[in-house]
Amino acid sequence: MRLRTEQRHDDLVETAFSLDDVPGILWTPTIPAAATTPSPLVLLGHPGDLSRMHPRLLARARSCVAAGFAAATLELPGTGERPRHPDADRARADLRRAVRAGEPVPDVVVDRLVLPLVEQAAPEWRAALDALLARPDLRGPVAWSGGIISLGVRMAVVEPRIAAAVLFAGSYVPRAIVEEARTVTVPLLVLLQWDDEGNDRQQALGLFEALGSREKTLHANTGGHTGVPAFEGDDAARFFTRHLRPAPEVSGQPTSLGDRPVTRRNTSANAPGLR
Amino acid sequence: MRLRTEQRHDDLVETAFSLDDVPGILWTPTIPAAATTPSPLVLLGHPGDLSRMHPRLLARARSCVAAGFAAATLELPGTGERPRHPDADRARADLRRAVRAGEPVPDVVVDRLVLPLVEQAAPEWRAALDALLARPDLRGPVAWSGGIISLGVRMAVVEPRIAAAVLFAGSYVPRAIVEEARTVTVPLLVLLQWDDEGNDRQQALGLFEALGSREKTLHANTGGHTGVPAFEGDDAARFFTRHLRPAPEVSGQPTSLGDRPVTRRNTSANAPGLR
Repeated sequence: MRLRTEQRHDDLVETAFSLDDVPGILWTPTIPAAATTPSPLVLLGHPGDLSRMHPRLLARARSCVAAGFAAATLELPGTGERPRHPDADRARADLRRAVRAGEPVPDVVVDRLVLPLVEQAAPEWRAALDALLARPDLRGPVAWSGGIISLGVRMAVVEPRIAAAVLFAGSYVPRAIVEEARTVTVPLLVLLQWDDEGNDRQQALGLFEALGSREKTLHANTGGHTGVPAFEGDDAARFFTRHLRPAPEVSGQPTSLGDRPVTRRNTSANAPGLR
Repeated sequence: MRLRTEQRHDDLVETAFSLDDVPGILWTPTIPAAATTPSPLVLLGHPGDLSRMHPRLLARARSCVAAGFAAATLELPGTGERPRHPDADRARADLRRAVRAGEPVPDVVVDRLVLPLVEQAAPEWRAALDALLARPDLRGPVAWSGGIISLGVRMAVVEPRIAAAVLFAGSYVPRAIVEEARTVTVPLLVLLQWDDEGNDRQQALGLFEALGSREKTLHANTGGHTGVPAFEGDDAARFFTRHLRPAPEVSGQPTSLGDRPVTRRNTSANAPGLR
């Protein structure tokens, strides 16, 4: 792992790196106390092009660091400063043409666009994990957070160091990945924008249904693709805390908490079917 | 409002009361500091029969009080120690027969069971609000929390002091109530158990879609009717805090929070359709 630049903010240090010519970014806490304890790592997924995505990735990293985690991301194949993938570019053009014409996007176009990307990216992110977790200030288990959902699913399946994942619901998921989703076992939080103009809601709900994890939660919010409410950032941080920091203060909560949620049971002799 | 009994726990005071012969329970904090500041009130909905529901209502009240709220509930018409409603009992028997026979429950049965109950209960709960908010230790605005969802919808529509509602997704919602749901405007958190054996998932999603509120969030979790995870109790408490306590520490959060959620936008020239 070659360090390229380091930028210090009030709340975090941003380290640009490259690994076998793949650019990446690591965000770690600046607080001295945190330096003595390794931070669990959150991998930030994104749709590609680190420089374009940087403001939003930085905001997400800031949220992670504020909650006691480090965050890292990697450029996707064929995007940003990485060499283009002509076949993916052609598939992307075909997809756009179909969407503009209001036609269904053929499965084969989705496969050509997504599958090679996932095939190439997953080993790169795993190699980055090897390099990152070798640092004394970082530790596993780690979490996946964000899109693209196909890569999140693949990573959750193949990478045993991933203990939990926040997935952003998206369309254009290859059927092979939907099948793969059935084998995911880690706890999941899936975010869905209910009125997402570019997202097929039934497909997204179908993918949520397909995901194999015993513990999975869907958070659906009104609003379009960019309208994810601010409180979902906090919810994601709490989800990571639950699964990456099984700390004494959590397991030491009053046992009444365990009873609390059982508030919807309906064994009423008086009001069956009413909840 | 006639006080019947008062029971002191470590963390809360439970006051059983009756109002025009309708039994109810109020839970308030015991902490002296809290007595000097009126607590916002959460109304706890339930499917009927306070004595049977008591353990779960107490646990939910405990969660509310721990988060700085008071909680109150009222017996539903025709349940518990209140006079029976023969027609509702007949409708309930018809519903059970249909469910046992694996037949669809006719709309008219749902209407006979639910509509008179909602018609009678809503004014009773509003009268209870009048009486409760006259107390110096309670204040509005208030929140609704729980089932039955038809009563929660009606209360959210007719009672202007309700500023937010947590609704438990349920089936057997009269079509008239689904239409009424379109006129709800307060922020909503809807809980759905994804594998609820007694709940039609598509109906529940359809009701979520129908609800008119600009701010509505669906939390769907794997598991059956009684399997609501413990963390949903915490999420509900945070939802109430957001809407009943718009405190300075919330509005004074760094503005970067406002940018954080915009992490899923996909305007990529490189990867359209991938999220």
